[in-house]
Amino acid sequence: MPQERPSRDAYVRFTPMTTRLRDNDQYLHLNNAVYYEYFDSAVNLWLLERCGLELPNGPVVGIVADTQCTFLAEVKWPAPVEVGMRIDRIGRTSLTYGLAMFAGDGAPACAVCRYVHVYCVNPERRPTPLPERLKAEAERLVIGGTP
Amino acid sequence: MPQERPSRDAYVRFTPMTTRLRDNDQYLHLNNAVYYEYFDSAVNLWLLERCGLELPNGPVVGIVADTQCTFLAEVKWPAPVEVGMRIDRIGRTSLTYGLAMFAGDGAPACAVCRYVHVYCVNPERRPTPLPERLKAEAERLVIGGTP
Amino acid sequence: MPQERPSRDAYVRFTPMTTRLRDNDQYLHLNNAVYYEYFDSAVNLWLLERCGLELPNGPVVGIVADTQCTFLAEVKWPAPVEVGMRIDRIGRTSLTYGLAMFAGDGAPACAVCRYVHVYCVNPERRPTPLPERLKAEAERLVIGGTP
Amino acid sequence: MPQERPSRDAYVRFTPMTTRLRDNDQYLHLNNAVYYEYFDSAVNLWLLERCGLELPNGPVVGIVADTQCTFLAEVKWPAPVEVGMRIDRIGRTSLTYGLAMFAGDGAPACAVCRYVHVYCVNPERRPTPLPERLKAEAERLVIGGTP
Repeated sequence: MPQERPSRDAYVRFTPMTTRLRDNDQYLHLNNAVYYEYFDSAVNLWLLERCGLELPNGPVVGIVADTQCTFLAEVKWPAPVEVGMRIDRIGRTSLTYGLAMFAGDGAPACAVCRYVHVYCVNPERRPTPLPERLKAEAERLVIGGTP
Repeated sequence: MPQERPSRDAYVRFTPMTTRLRDNDQYLHLNNAVYYEYFDSAVNLWLLERCGLELPNGPVVGIVADTQCTFLAEVKWPAPVEVGMRIDRIGRTSLTYGLAMFAGDGAPACAVCRYVHVYCVNPERRPTPLPERLKAEAERLVIGGTP
Repeated sequence: MPQERPSRDAYVRFTPMTTRLRDNDQYLHLNNAVYYEYFDSAVNLWLLERCGLELPNGPVVGIVADTQCTFLAEVKWPAPVEVGMRIDRIGRTSLTYGLAMFAGDGAPACAVCRYVHVYCVNPERRPTPLPERLKAEAERLVIGGTP
Repeated sequence: MPQERPSRDAYVRFTPMTTRLRDNDQYLHLNNAVYYEYFDSAVNLWLLERCGLELPNGPVVGIVADTQCTFLAEVKWPAPVEVGMRIDRIGRTSLTYGLAMFAGDGAPACAVCRYVHVYCVNPERRPTPLPERLKAEAERLVIGGTP
């Protein structure tokens, strides 16, 4: 029943991040909540850098609807990490990301995450169809071509 | 498709918590990662207060295997929140918690969470059958009796 | 040379807060950085509740210029805490707060903090004289009367 | 009265770090508390990498006694940052670090920090004279030679 740890091949884009002493909790490993900070940062960085979203006050922003993480191996500060990213589903107003955390040592993923973002117009935050450029960039993160 | 927001009746134990200015992110609401800090605290507090676990260095500790959260309504600091808690599944070495966040205004849940803890012996962190007292307390959080 | 731990008498307003499992770091006590989250929240809550500042997008906001904290006694999650607050200096465009953290057990302060806020007009964030209501409320937090 | 922003020449060791979306608070810049997470991480990393301290459970650990930060210029996620570090005072049982945050753009420091660590024996956490190797490494971070 323990889930298999995916390799880097299962992801398209990689975002390196540093961990912090405060990320280690009293169990002497990265706290479970903090993984979501890395994942959230990787997704929003891609939106800023590649997709032309002006965050947080542009016409369209991503609002998190659902997140899920399976923890597969322990990681500790001060290990640097990398977030792997792909797109698993392109919806009309949403994207489902497949994310993973790698501890930078060539080992397979320490954690995998499903992250659902709904794109909304500001300031009402009503769902809106994906902007063209966002959709085109999302397609580039799909493994095996447009889903 | 938007999920229904459960009421307080769907939970057994409630843990009040305060939010912090830093919990609001640049979208002017509680950051998605921080919800997991509230949920994690509520579970561990129950283990300490009710179940006799000596955390983090006693003979048995809980290690997070999987978490998932659906975000149903926006919450902002400085609103205080309450975490509702029940047990959805009692496994041999694990517990699956059903958690929810309420914003303290009588409204139904703003977020619901599934949180899977595997209980492990220290310091090897190998899964171990639930201690008797933990299992007995867990049964008290099952809605509709022992599952 | 160890500094004396002040009592609650040295503060005027008190803000209760809950700690979180993630606040405990690998040294098994509240991480030093997190004290500033409590202090920052207490100050901003007072600005919102008592002083009429519309945060973060009203005409005047407080920008942190300088903070300092002396750590006097260890605190651990799950202890609840209280932030004590007074005003130590009313400047033309700034307030200097005297803050302290109490661990809710009748003991003197576990930490004391000096926190300097400069009030600025939005969106340029240029220093501006204290609004009348803010100044009047600040005077009520001075110990021994208007400084 | 606004303090001058020091240049990189005023520091000896540099530690690069990534910021996170969650570090931006509702004022759309890095929250003041989070600066202390960067500083704390830089100091503890040096202790681990260079000074032979086994953290957190070795015979000697550093306990934070006092921190202070002056905020000189706004920084925003996703800018990467670098922490500059030097030693300003070598005491019998303590070190006073001079730290600064640079935003990686060649500009002078965005924030400067004074950070006092007392070295203590585990598990009693009683102050103890600096271990020889720690003292020798500290001397290498003093600007202008042993103070």
